[in-house]
Amino acid sequence: MVKVGVVGYGTIGQRLADGVALQKDMELIGIADVAPTLPVLALKEKGMPYNFYLALSENKEKLEKFGIPISGNLEDLIKKCDIILDATNAGIGAKNKKLYEKYGKKAIFQGGEKTEIADVFFHGYANFEKGLGKQFLKLTSCNTTGLIRTVDALDREIGIDNVIITIVRRVADPGDYHRGLTNALKVDKVPNHQAVDLMLVMPHVKATGTLVHTPVTHGHFITVAAKPKKTVTKEAVVEIFKKHPRIRVVKIEDGFLGNASIFKFGRDLGHPRGDLYEVFTWEETITVFDDRIIYSIHIPQESVTIPETIDGIRAAMKMQLDRLEAVSLTNKYLNIKNINY
Amino acid sequence: MVKVGVVGYGTIGQRLADGVALQKDMELIGIADVAPTLPVLALKEKGMPYNFYLALSENKEKLEKFGIPISGNLEDLIKKCDIILDATNAGIGAKNKKLYEKYGKKAIFQGGEKTEIADVFFHGYANFEKGLGKQFLKLTSCNTTGLIRTVDALDREIGIDNVIITIVRRVADPGDYHRGLTNALKVDKVPNHQAVDLMLVMPHVKATGTLVHTPVTHGHFITVAAKPKKTVTKEAVVEIFKKHPRIRVVKIEDGFLGNASIFKFGRDLGHPRGDLYEVFTWEETITVFDDRIIYSIHIPQESVTIPETIDGIRAAMKMQLDRLEAVSLTNKYLNIKNINY
Amino acid sequence: MVKVGVVGYGTIGQRLADGVALQKDMELIGIADVAPTLPVLALKEKGMPYNFYLALSENKEKLEKFGIPISGNLEDLIKKCDIILDATNAGIGAKNKKLYEKYGKKAIFQGGEKTEIADVFFHGYANFEKGLGKQFLKLTSCNTTGLIRTVDALDREIGIDNVIITIVRRVADPGDYHRGLTNALKVDKVPNHQAVDLMLVMPHVKATGTLVHTPVTHGHFITVAAKPKKTVTKEAVVEIFKKHPRIRVVKIEDGFLGNASIFKFGRDLGHPRGDLYEVFTWEETITVFDDRIIYSIHIPQESVTIPETIDGIRAAMKMQLDRLEAVSLTNKYLNIKNINY
Amino acid sequence: MVKVGVVGYGTIGQRLADGVALQKDMELIGIADVAPTLPVLALKEKGMPYNFYLALSENKEKLEKFGIPISGNLEDLIKKCDIILDATNAGIGAKNKKLYEKYGKKAIFQGGEKTEIADVFFHGYANFEKGLGKQFLKLTSCNTTGLIRTVDALDREIGIDNVIITIVRRVADPGDYHRGLTNALKVDKVPNHQAVDLMLVMPHVKATGTLVHTPVTHGHFITVAAKPKKTVTKEAVVEIFKKHPRIRVVKIEDGFLGNASIFKFGRDLGHPRGDLYEVFTWEETITVFDDRIIYSIHIPQESVTIPETIDGIRAAMKMQLDRLEAVSLTNKYLNIKNINY
Ligand SMILES: NC(=O)c1ccc[n+]([C@@H]2O[C@H](COP(=O)([O-])OP(=O)(O)OC[C@H]3O[C@@H](n4cnc5c(N)ncnc54)[C@H](O)[C@@H]3O)[C@@H](O)[C@H]2O)c1
Ligand SMILES: NC(=O)c1ccc[n+]([C@@H]2O[C@H](COP(=O)([O-])OP(=O)(O)OC[C@H]3O[C@@H](n4cnc5c(N)ncnc54)[C@H](O)[C@@H]3O)[C@@H](O)[C@H]2O)c1
Ligand SMILES: NC(=O)c1ccc[n+]([C@@H]2O[C@H](COP(=O)([O-])OP(=O)(O)OC[C@H]3O[C@@H](n4cnc5c(N)ncnc54)[C@H](O)[C@@H]3O)[C@@H](O)[C@H]2O)c1
Ligand SMILES: NC(=O)c1ccc[n+]([C@@H]2O[C@H](COP(=O)([O-])OP(=O)(O)OC[C@H]3O[C@@H](n4cnc5c(N)ncnc54)[C@H](O)[C@@H]3O)[C@@H](O)[C@H]2O)c1
Repeated sequence: MVKVGVVGYGTIGQRLADGVALQKDMELIGIADVAPTLPVLALKEKGMPYNFYLALSENKEKLEKFGIPISGNLEDLIKKCDIILDATNAGIGAKNKKLYEKYGKKAIFQGGEKTEIADVFFHGYANFEKGLGKQFLKLTSCNTTGLIRTVDALDREIGIDNVIITIVRRVADPGDYHRGLTNALKVDKVPNHQAVDLMLVMPHVKATGTLVHTPVTHGHFITVAAKPKKTVTKEAVVEIFKKHPRIRVVKIEDGFLGNASIFKFGRDLGHPRGDLYEVFTWEETITVFDDRIIYSIHIPQESVTIPETIDGIRAAMKMQLDRLEAVSLTNKYLNIKNINY
Repeated sequence: MVKVGVVGYGTIGQRLADGVALQKDMELIGIADVAPTLPVLALKEKGMPYNFYLALSENKEKLEKFGIPISGNLEDLIKKCDIILDATNAGIGAKNKKLYEKYGKKAIFQGGEKTEIADVFFHGYANFEKGLGKQFLKLTSCNTTGLIRTVDALDREIGIDNVIITIVRRVADPGDYHRGLTNALKVDKVPNHQAVDLMLVMPHVKATGTLVHTPVTHGHFITVAAKPKKTVTKEAVVEIFKKHPRIRVVKIEDGFLGNASIFKFGRDLGHPRGDLYEVFTWEETITVFDDRIIYSIHIPQESVTIPETIDGIRAAMKMQLDRLEAVSLTNKYLNIKNINY
Repeated sequence: MVKVGVVGYGTIGQRLADGVALQKDMELIGIADVAPTLPVLALKEKGMPYNFYLALSENKEKLEKFGIPISGNLEDLIKKCDIILDATNAGIGAKNKKLYEKYGKKAIFQGGEKTEIADVFFHGYANFEKGLGKQFLKLTSCNTTGLIRTVDALDREIGIDNVIITIVRRVADPGDYHRGLTNALKVDKVPNHQAVDLMLVMPHVKATGTLVHTPVTHGHFITVAAKPKKTVTKEAVVEIFKKHPRIRVVKIEDGFLGNASIFKFGRDLGHPRGDLYEVFTWEETITVFDDRIIYSIHIPQESVTIPETIDGIRAAMKMQLDRLEAVSLTNKYLNIKNINY
Repeated sequence: MVKVGVVGYGTIGQRLADGVALQKDMELIGIADVAPTLPVLALKEKGMPYNFYLALSENKEKLEKFGIPISGNLEDLIKKCDIILDATNAGIGAKNKKLYEKYGKKAIFQGGEKTEIADVFFHGYANFEKGLGKQFLKLTSCNTTGLIRTVDALDREIGIDNVIITIVRRVADPGDYHRGLTNALKVDKVPNHQAVDLMLVMPHVKATGTLVHTPVTHGHFITVAAKPKKTVTKEAVVEIFKKHPRIRVVKIEDGFLGNASIFKFGRDLGHPRGDLYEVFTWEETITVFDDRIIYSIHIPQESVTIPETIDGIRAAMKMQLDRLEAVSLTNKYLNIKNINY
């Protein structure tokens, strides 16, 4: 049983904790945060399924006011773990890293940290082997994680020379009050960081792209124009996507009208928080045109990086040495079912 | 065991089915809908915990395409039930009523139907006794249900002469594509229907109000200026609300910044779909001014009517004759905990 | 002086009327609508700069209630004109066409009508010659009008083989209450109609694309990946766009952060309604990658079709026979200045 | 001719400059800002109708890059003026005040500054006399300015004892990228600052209220429940509002459906930027209930403070000593027409 701690119990940290708790070959030692945030209050109301470690001792009284039992401080948690999943706000991970180094522990950082923080910029499916035994991994960001799933799937079957993407980025998560746009689209410079990041993880594929922030919260939307190394039909592309457990192919005509349908679907499935681990593609958005495969994907930004982060534990801890063995164990424990209609 | 069927498995119907399934003294016979909608696909992916009855026979093939087992048609369901919860789109209930009459069954309709459809316009807490043994009940709409909870709570303790309300109405549910506003507020005539409806259910209280539709999906927001029959302090009002199991008092300073915080909190609590049965009020919005008690409430529109509808089953079927006995059984089975900080 | 009437005085009709009124070689005979809509009330408050014709006689009293002088009915207007700009709601133009035929008048329809309604699917810059002397023209829709401007500009200089586009479509105009999305993206089937329409107007260019509707009102956003027939530098592309009077090149770093900056800029320029006739492109979104030119454009949907519609008058009435002579007269009278920094 | 300068040429500053330029008894000496912002670029494209003074000398080169002629620095502007309208970002005015003191000039600050900055917290209609001859005035914020117009109008005719308000606040101006909410309502503590501010300007009226921020840009919406000192009919209230030049009474049934209709109406009226100086109320939202007058108002936040600020010049400079003489001159030059249907 690999011992895992989660530092930062926000949007990503909560989901990491839940994901790790489902893995039969891992043990969640606890989670750490700095204050009685709403997720911590929710943890309390759920009966403290996970032990709470306080990362900011001066807030002890605030926690006690709410009757939240404290299992120790951040270093207490680190000492008990083999590996830490750091899901603190962007930039904090870099500070925490010193503690992980102090105790000789491994750690996986999320997309908000600088790439230099880690030994390898990691994505479960695309470069599992690179992560084997490494001390510090950084996971690709939510958009890049989902995008790479699809590009890697195509690349392994037919070879991909390059991709041109347009990202329609959800500007805030549901519940965010510290960021947001109102009736405005915001344009980023080309290439966007996701295209650059893709090239770091898949150096044999060239990439560029445009990004526009939109005032929605329920998922990013990406169009991809990928140049394959050999000709391919739409049907073959659909089959490649359907085979992939972390990609789900749906149809507009079945009622999947956009990001909000998918968010609602996740809720109606009864998943905790309505979360979905899969990226979605719509069959009616897939086509082959000129020298390019064209398709669109939906990225459930709050939960998409969970599977690949757990893959990262498997790689860093050398729990499995084989890519497919590792990812399929993650999938199995996360109950990813590979349903397509 | 009272046998219950749910007709219309959309936003409200799904939650009614889940709520009934939790009641230890009720049996959910099944649910009916007309097509393989996304909620029905989700039901399928969850392993068909509820039996599905097809209300539109010509769609049989479509259902079969998705491998959804059909337990019968709408009349088959009705025949097996003691009472039907009709949660079809506004106006359809009036048609279905003929079938319920044909088989001599009881039914509870939701807020979208005309008030004339029912023998009594029902609200569990406020007028439970009126529903006792009646064949047809119509539940108050989501805003009115939540509003009446709070006005009734105050009225029973201190007496309320009249209320003036402003409703900031969420214009669509998450996932809705058939309605929506973009960067626009829409104003309704005064009085809004919720004030009028309140007077129908609580004829001894006068009410008026303004309503403005806003482009958000995560809950209605209402400000209330209620005129009490005797003077009262803010603290007393807070205590009345805190005692009520279906009203939750929170604080802005604890992180409950608005509707989106509450929606996120419901998800983080791990409730299916992130649903919340309680209305919320913020302590910092409660005050006593001149001759009025002022407070604000948050209405989780997708789930707020579930408890009162289940109270309605208890009343119509005379499962309990006492109001408080009935509502507290509903609360118990729905796991409503009455937590306040 | 060519005599012009505008039928339908809504979002597009008002702007067409203003645009025609500025043309020194045209005379605006009047405008027609069916009711005292807000634009008609605004016309009244401005002192009736344009004569009003009532297209629905039964509404006469309503108009009189507001003191709006009526110059005649729809047929009265048609009879006095050489050419009608029909800007009624989609589908109405097809009915009105019979009247235009009855009086042997020319007409130009907007994008909401079926393409079959017209003798030629028209775009001032791209196929002016096709419109010469024709009776019925239909203008490309707002997205297609702007898109074609840029593709045509590139095509005339370096040849374009094909284009792949992603449209981030504003879902409603400011002030629209009859359509809207709230926190939802809506995906369309590939190819979108704009790509198909481009091929109708520019049959030598292949096109496909994806479209996602977004909850904003201030302009469509399009990314284009165009395959040129010969290699080209980014600088050359920028120069081609800068030379085009109806394309404006701006920089994100100068403060043009997205659609809302541009909308605000139009207002600050003091243009009536803040309207802009140009499409905008951001220098930082233009790049050359693999075999493709990549760039993004902003489409001010309310006003972008005005110049090309006026070009259509010039073509249909054979006021000019030469494309560049015609469009530059339109530009001059519309005060399009070709400013770039 | 009173010599006026505008410091800070953003949303408010631009409109102040335009408003002053229209006053036949004032001279706009120039405007000052720190950088070639989009409003300054727009000024350039309009042919520099106002002289530009550079408030941050290190940015000189940036201005020159765009060919913007510089008439001097901030102190140069101040020296030439009798009075400065400071419309810089909240907090900057406090710093600038030292310069105004240095040169012994008068100044009017906007709502973002602290109330202590000024000798009097000013509102043209409500407390004109208090501003007479004062050196430093601070104008009420946009919501408070509009609210006080209506409360003062009622108060002068029938006496108002107290008001309870609910503000549905637009969270950002069109074009704002530095603030915004996405699918979220944000609740403020009761009482909101607008109620407190009302009491500062009208100390004989008690006030409280709730405020919720909403993700829209086209105007604030306020419901008011005002307690009159004598009974009054709805019709009388409508008449009081109709008589007021800066309040406009409209009807939902005429098509004024909400904030976005009004914003569009302003644009269709052809006003620069589509601006409106009036607050709007809907006849169908006005009622008399129990001891209260109830009504709703729309606040065009970008332009509503312009008239009262110009009134402030008249007071501070003692151009008129009589309240009604002063405001009606402002109204006349701003072309406020007092139209009601
Ligand atoms: N939200 C997304 O959609 C998303 C998707 C993919 C990746 N990410 C990345 O995941 C990381 C976390 O983002 P998030 O959205 O979950 O943020 P969040 O703000 O929801 O959660 C961060 C949590 O970390 C806690 N925290 C801050 N400092 C801490 C410390 N010193 N010790 C312990 N806890 C601390 C905060 O209190 C908060 O609860 C970031 O790197 C982000 O870029 C986010
Ligand atoms: N959505 C809310 O926030 C809310 C809140 C309170 C009350 N209500 C009321 O609840 C009712 C249902 O609303 P909803 O939001 O759940 O609608 P919905 O559209 O989500 O669901 C309605 C369901 O009824 C099904 N249906 C339609 N005709 C049918 C028929 N003849 N037989 C069986 N099923 C049929 C539809 O396929 C759909 O699945 C309405 O009266 C509404 O006014 C809704
Ligand atoms: N709004 C846009 O962004 C946009 C952009 C490009 C093209 N278009 C196209 O322009 C056309 C008009 O669209 P719009 O947005 O201006 O619509 P709109 O609804 O703003 O205006 C249409 C006007 O036509 C009037 N009308 C309806 N029937 C009439 C009749 N029989 N006779 C006279 N007037 C009548 C209506 O009262 C209304 O004022 C449509 O074909 C649309 O697809 C719209
Ligand atoms: N925007 C509104 O709706 C609104 C309504 C009423 C009152 N106000 C108040 O008006 C004031 C201005 O707000 P705004 O919305 O116009 O802001 P804004 O950001 O649009 O404009 C402020 C301008 O001031 C300039 N500036 C900053 N520092 C300066 C300096 N030292 N010297 C000269 N110029 C400087 C900025 O460059 C900017 O152009 C604030 O007090 C605000 O609270 C705003």
